[in-house]
Amino acid sequence: MSADAVVLLSGGLDSATVAAIARRDGFAVHAVSFRYGQRHAVELDAAAKVASAVGAVEHRIVDIDLRAFGGSALTADIDVPKAGVDTSSIPVTYVPARNTIFLSFALAFAEVLGSDDIFIGVNALDYSGYPDCRPEYLAAYQAMARLATKAGVEGGRPVQIHAPLIDRRKSEIVRLGVDLGVDYAITISCYDPSDDGGACGECDSCRLRRQGFADAGISDPTHYAGIR
Amino acid sequence: MSADAVVLLSGGLDSATVAAIARRDGFAVHAVSFRYGQRHAVELDAAAKVASAVGAVEHRIVDIDLRAFGGSALTADIDVPKAGVDTSSIPVTYVPARNTIFLSFALAFAEVLGSDDIFIGVNALDYSGYPDCRPEYLAAYQAMARLATKAGVEGGRPVQIHAPLIDRRKSEIVRLGVDLGVDYAITISCYDPSDDGGACGECDSCRLRRQGFADAGISDPTHYAGIR
Repeated sequence: MSADAVVLLSGGLDSATVAAIARRDGFAVHAVSFRYGQRHAVELDAAAKVASAVGAVEHRIVDIDLRAFGGSALTADIDVPKAGVDTSSIPVTYVPARNTIFLSFALAFAEVLGSDDIFIGVNALDYSGYPDCRPEYLAAYQAMARLATKAGVEGGRPVQIHAPLIDRRKSEIVRLGVDLGVDYAITISCYDPSDDGGACGECDSCRLRRQGFADAGISDPTHYAGIR
Repeated sequence: MSADAVVLLSGGLDSATVAAIARRDGFAVHAVSFRYGQRHAVELDAAAKVASAVGAVEHRIVDIDLRAFGGSALTADIDVPKAGVDTSSIPVTYVPARNTIFLSFALAFAEVLGSDDIFIGVNALDYSGYPDCRPEYLAAYQAMARLATKAGVEGGRPVQIHAPLIDRRKSEIVRLGVDLGVDYAITISCYDPSDDGGACGECDSCRLRRQGFADAGISDPTHYAGIR
């Protein structure tokens, strides 16, 4: 019997690749996505397609209200920047404590399942400067998680936070995913997609994705509505 | 101008005391409560009264769906035990990763406010054996939180997780709160209250509360519906 793993699934390129890695490594995938007041619910449709494609045991969508606090271009009425990736400061697309909140729900779900394995698709290289995508953050999260649950008191296998893309370049991720059979046409990375799910092609996330396919020498299947 | 603090407010005895401590220490209190599928929404009414009584700047209620995962007598259809406090194992009233989730929302709220101070009313002595009420857990959470936010990258004052009741007995908490003017009649600790907000008097939380007042030699203002 496969061990259960909780996989955070955004519907984007990275998490789709991570789900495929979890399957490759023999885990039964319990996918979790969040409806968190993001502008683009089209993400959730993509996540459902990815969960199905990877053969997930289940796909749960959890409602959380990050708009109650605001503070990000992704959850409040702030424009998504499209002038190019600026790595000199943390961009307005940063959502305060988002990965901390997502991992905390994953931890709750894992504890209920009796699972010790949580997969998250962060990477620290071609990211946009978010504090909660750094290896030292994830290590601290794992140390906390090991004290947070019943297993932390009663013993048992400690919780593992798997971030297999943490030190990969976007082009490596694309190559790895293609090798694992990921269909990137069903994924969406854009911070500001059109209503029909087309990617803008110009936000940080689109730029990193396009560059990743270009660097990998792989044809990009993304529908960029914003680019003629 | 007072510094802002985020205070997790459940409507119970401990968090009401913590809110009073935050005010005593000069903080402007931004109270946060959660509607998390708990059986007893009467908690939220109590939290609103406590927020008002302590002069909170605001009181936000965040909807989260812990019932999506279940796994606890407080969020699923499992009976609340009333035979007495059993400290030999973690009880079914434990909600998986609850404090981790609550603190993560508090961290997001603090980051949006520009606040570095989060107050939580856990205590490790007269508690019910929950892993996420232990000092080592809170220390690990704080270490993680300091890496999770913009301040963790850009510098600035590190996040402080204040748990001023962590090593206090329930009787000490009651005495401290009475000294600070807390009106415990508006608080509710019961895991299984009646529809009119009366406490059962027999769940672990009621037993610990009753014992606390008895040990403090202070008259218990709680309305125990279950006790004649």
